[in-house]
Amino acid sequence: MNAIRQKKLLTVEEVRGCWAIVPTPATANASNPDARETVDLDETARVVEQLVAAGVDGVLSLGTLGECATLEWAEKRAFMATMVDAARGRIPIFGGTTSLNTRETIRQTREARAVGVDGVMLGPPMWCAPDVPTVVQFYRDVAEACPDTAICVYANNEAFKFDFPRPFWAQVAEIPQVVSAKYLGIGALAADLNVSRRRIRLLPLDVDYYAAARIDPEFCTGFWTSGAVCGPAPAIALRDEIAKGKETGDWSAAKELSDKISATYRTLFPNGSFREFSSYNIGLEKARINEAGWMKAGPCRPPYHLVPEAYLEGARESGKQWSILHHAMSNAKQN
Amino acid sequence: MNAIRQKKLLTVEEVRGCWAIVPTPATANASNPDARETVDLDETARVVEQLVAAGVDGVLSLGTLGECATLEWAEKRAFMATMVDAARGRIPIFGGTTSLNTRETIRQTREARAVGVDGVMLGPPMWCAPDVPTVVQFYRDVAEACPDTAICVYANNEAFKFDFPRPFWAQVAEIPQVVSAKYLGIGALAADLNVSRRRIRLLPLDVDYYAAARIDPEFCTGFWTSGAVCGPAPAIALRDEIAKGKETGDWSAAKELSDKISATYRTLFPNGSFREFSSYNIGLEKARINEAGWMKAGPCRPPYHLVPEAYLEGARESGKQWSILHHAMSNAKQN
Amino acid sequence: MNAIRQKKLLTVEEVRGCWAIVPTPATANASNPDARETVDLDETARVVEQLVAAGVDGVLSLGTLGECATLEWAEKRAFMATMVDAARGRIPIFGGTTSLNTRETIRQTREARAVGVDGVMLGPPMWCAPDVPTVVQFYRDVAEACPDTAICVYANNEAFKFDFPRPFWAQVAEIPQVVSAKYLGIGALAADLNVSRRRIRLLPLDVDYYAAARIDPEFCTGFWTSGAVCGPAPAIALRDEIAKGKETGDWSAAKELSDKISATYRTLFPNGSFREFSSYNIGLEKARINEAGWMKAGPCRPPYHLVPEAYLEGARESGKQWSILHHAMSNAKQN
Amino acid sequence: MNAIRQKKLLTVEEVRGCWAIVPTPATANASNPDARETVDLDETARVVEQLVAAGVDGVLSLGTLGECATLEWAEKRAFMATMVDAARGRIPIFGGTTSLNTRETIRQTREARAVGVDGVMLGPPMWCAPDVPTVVQFYRDVAEACPDTAICVYANNEAFKFDFPRPFWAQVAEIPQVVSAKYLGIGALAADLNVSRRRIRLLPLDVDYYAAARIDPEFCTGFWTSGAVCGPAPAIALRDEIAKGKETGDWSAAKELSDKISATYRTLFPNGSFREFSSYNIGLEKARINEAGWMKAGPCRPPYHLVPEAYLEGARESGKQWSILHHAMSNAKQN
Repeated sequence: MNAIRQKKLLTVEEVRGCWAIVPTPATANASNPDARETVDLDETARVVEQLVAAGVDGVLSLGTLGECATLEWAEKRAFMATMVDAARGRIPIFGGTTSLNTRETIRQTREARAVGVDGVMLGPPMWCAPDVPTVVQFYRDVAEACPDTAICVYANNEAFKFDFPRPFWAQVAEIPQVVSAKYLGIGALAADLNVSRRRIRLLPLDVDYYAAARIDPEFCTGFWTSGAVCGPAPAIALRDEIAKGKETGDWSAAKELSDKISATYRTLFPNGSFREFSSYNIGLEKARINEAGWMKAGPCRPPYHLVPEAYLEGARESGKQWSILHHAMSNAKQN
Repeated sequence: MNAIRQKKLLTVEEVRGCWAIVPTPATANASNPDARETVDLDETARVVEQLVAAGVDGVLSLGTLGECATLEWAEKRAFMATMVDAARGRIPIFGGTTSLNTRETIRQTREARAVGVDGVMLGPPMWCAPDVPTVVQFYRDVAEACPDTAICVYANNEAFKFDFPRPFWAQVAEIPQVVSAKYLGIGALAADLNVSRRRIRLLPLDVDYYAAARIDPEFCTGFWTSGAVCGPAPAIALRDEIAKGKETGDWSAAKELSDKISATYRTLFPNGSFREFSSYNIGLEKARINEAGWMKAGPCRPPYHLVPEAYLEGARESGKQWSILHHAMSNAKQN
Repeated sequence: MNAIRQKKLLTVEEVRGCWAIVPTPATANASNPDARETVDLDETARVVEQLVAAGVDGVLSLGTLGECATLEWAEKRAFMATMVDAARGRIPIFGGTTSLNTRETIRQTREARAVGVDGVMLGPPMWCAPDVPTVVQFYRDVAEACPDTAICVYANNEAFKFDFPRPFWAQVAEIPQVVSAKYLGIGALAADLNVSRRRIRLLPLDVDYYAAARIDPEFCTGFWTSGAVCGPAPAIALRDEIAKGKETGDWSAAKELSDKISATYRTLFPNGSFREFSSYNIGLEKARINEAGWMKAGPCRPPYHLVPEAYLEGARESGKQWSILHHAMSNAKQN
Repeated sequence: MNAIRQKKLLTVEEVRGCWAIVPTPATANASNPDARETVDLDETARVVEQLVAAGVDGVLSLGTLGECATLEWAEKRAFMATMVDAARGRIPIFGGTTSLNTRETIRQTREARAVGVDGVMLGPPMWCAPDVPTVVQFYRDVAEACPDTAICVYANNEAFKFDFPRPFWAQVAEIPQVVSAKYLGIGALAADLNVSRRRIRLLPLDVDYYAAARIDPEFCTGFWTSGAVCGPAPAIALRDEIAKGKETGDWSAAKELSDKISATYRTLFPNGSFREFSSYNIGLEKARINEAGWMKAGPCRPPYHLVPEAYLEGARESGKQWSILHHAMSNAKQN
């Protein structure tokens, strides 16, 4: 089946609904610089199966939280292959092949496609702060070298020293392989949708999905969530309530749920700062996920395993609040 | 001989004088994402031989300008082995093993030492902006895994999202393998020397060496220069004039030469901005070096091969000015 | 009449609809440091009358564009008195009393209220970058000293070295005099509305009003516009089309108009940067307004009268485009 | 005597030695927004007399720490007149007339000169981040309007949203009235001295004076210090030891004293950050000065009277350490 799927490029129409960000589950010794084969593949397979069962529409992986920076290539390949096998073609699976240069990313993307991923979440090389022509050419080179692999632009300005301005979206929209983007904020969303001529599904974060869907109900049909692995019920319900809002014009339930999800984030960002969060992204997200208890994300790989305890407390509280919401909604559904 | 040298860790006392930054010379097709084996090894060997002949005291390589970001590991290893063979133990050779994580840097550093480098110029992983404990632990982990390999801290705040504050220098000075630093600016130099208890040779840029040597004549005995590969004469003369200033108390010749070297930099930084320069570091330095004509640095590897033409002009002018200085000083010496 | 109006504090319910930002029209010699009495009071009265006639709902003045920085106090007082007289109580008029300290702002605010303004647009002192307690205490002190004067928080992060974070909105919402805010962006709007418990009318910019109204149709009932003085028709129509969208559920006309207004901004921001715009805010806005021709804003007071010509061209083009839109809509209405 | 001094513009040659930054001493109720006439003029006169007696070479005032932002003009004028009267022409006295615009600064500068100051410490208007032509034109306009008043450029990038780049120094050096600068850092000092052709005495901070004097012994003959009002002995001794270093070539005593002074600063900057310090500059400096006990700086005027207690502790510790140094040196001298 993978052989068949590799022939066909995923389309922007196929990117919709709830896309879960999945961390790369780590073995207990993964913070040790001497550890090898640190991916918990059993947990990987279990989590993908549970996400499919819960109704998730797609998987993104191997971004910042997914430890793209700190995994060895053999580990990433095994992780992607395990996800693909577990998904069995029921939902699209995106791996991640961000690296320090064009040649390495092309090599990895070809191998990732060979193990069956539908696409890759991909940020630009980050050593030098690149300009728009450099980043556009980077995506063009990768797309031409890997023509049947879909690309989700990983639009994180802290990680990539690039602020993904309008001219970027206008130009990258010309590349057929670029079908979606892991997008942040809604301040520039309307303008970016316009300049990209709605050829790229700009996926907002779960808590921004309500606003995005109000601003452009026709095109804003999907979102990303790292909360899904704290328990998928709130994310799935958000997707469905917003769909109802679009149909009925009554958005009150969607708004209420969005506010509840937003409340769980209150303690996640140290001092309310995304920049500060970005320094400890992996450790904070893993603490949040581990505390929620729905999956075992495990420890962090070096050098990103040290996080101030006060920040960790906020992250764990965030995970606990999401988990409470997940269980309340799961029970409500069952009753 | 390499086998013997590997046993012994280079000391801070052995880091002094003029340290040349050497780019990784590229084959003509190196900007093409399909190119492989893009290092011009003949030019590598020739340049190292000529630097030794000119009197250079050490070599740093594989930083930003050295395209650590965009070379494949096999290329880096071949480049380092060629430099080591060419140097024949006459001067210390530092390779570079900056990567996205601790484990990969350790693996590379061990292989680099195995091919004979004396040390590595090493920056911290750059995906997340790290805090002081993270960066110190990173250097500690690498040093413990590679106890006989010297480390030159690559202190570039634009590349590494880290501003190398005083507490960092205080703590990293405890690691015996950390013997030097490729250092920028002199504003914090005196304070950083104090907190690091002069256990690390903080090497300023050539144009800052005069000021550094005035501020701390005893300890500031070395500097780094990427100008040396535009023609080594000015850099060697700078080293020697400053040594004379320390001996005689007459610093006028040293000051005059420093100002002349400084004048060649006038057009190198776009709009006078180091941050803007950092976006195009590789292309600008290679244009400067190629124009000077002393070595063939070749084109840039992707994705950093696109540079605005107006910026390139400034870089080429800078190379031309350095070259004029080099030839004037070489002729003066011969007559 | 002023005597009566001074007794009653404007309420948040009274802040709705289209609020025009009015520049302080300047005499021809106003860029000269020797000039005195530089306010064109006839033009001031004419513009306020025309704005009322066009249906504008309120006036904000003496912010950045309004040259609060560069006018003498006597000029500001005369300008505010003229606006109040021209408005004759038909719409609320806000002056501006931002200064370098609490005592001066209190003194000015009392005098502004004495000449009849309903409120003041007010930013915090800007010499030192203040923290949240400092800014909240500042507003509290002014409000207590001027209990019957409404305050519109001037939330401009570039001018005031303060990013107006969530805790600020949560705390300042406790002050009854704070009824509105000149607000920028929509990325944080939903969260800021929540923490301020909808006690403050956060007024978005005209081009953000469509998105704001979709996100919170009940509370987002007003916006600010400096375009109104380039010709009020598009701003008034925007207000009315969005009101229709809320009633009928058909937002297509509102969206189309919002996109047309947005298109006029394309050339206003140098290199698309708000920060760069902020350095030349006054000169760019005045060039835009003067080019549109609906009012005579005149030249800029020193030291903000020097603007790169290339930036001015973009501003004039922006004014021309708004003017074309204004005339097209005015004609359509008349036919 | 003032009448005579007003005729003659102070020259750059007259700016040398130890320039003390003097705060504007506050009455006990000065943090209250209702307070008026908050300057303790007796303490002002006493401090100036004591500074002259201690051997200080000049006085700078009414910058950030001097509460230029938060004093009323009548208070500033009375403060300046008191200092001038106390100094009786024995040392030059600089007031401060930084304001929000050119016209106001000219008005204030003329009045300041009329009460007898030799010059003004002056920063550019700070509402909009200005470009180089704007700031140069500002200084030119003030200088032309006040031709016999010396100007000390107040080069503080945090306060004035301006980074005082090389082209600024090159151009402002053409203005004869600009004789000195309150300068920060030494990283750009050598280059700024070159482009300003040594027409402006760039005064470094006390702890940077040693390095400055080594880099350019001929021209770097003065510095500024806010520590002098924590007890002048260390600052006076620093001036004298560095002069001895220049004469004898033996800089060891100068270096040792510089390091001791530097040690007193260790706890002054919150988290080692100048930016963070700048938010609380006034409160931290006043806490430091009050703790040292040599003068009574009093409380802060609003809105800058709120400072986190943890930061205040560091400032007080800094004042205590300076005071210990001052007393040790005073006693040594007497014995």
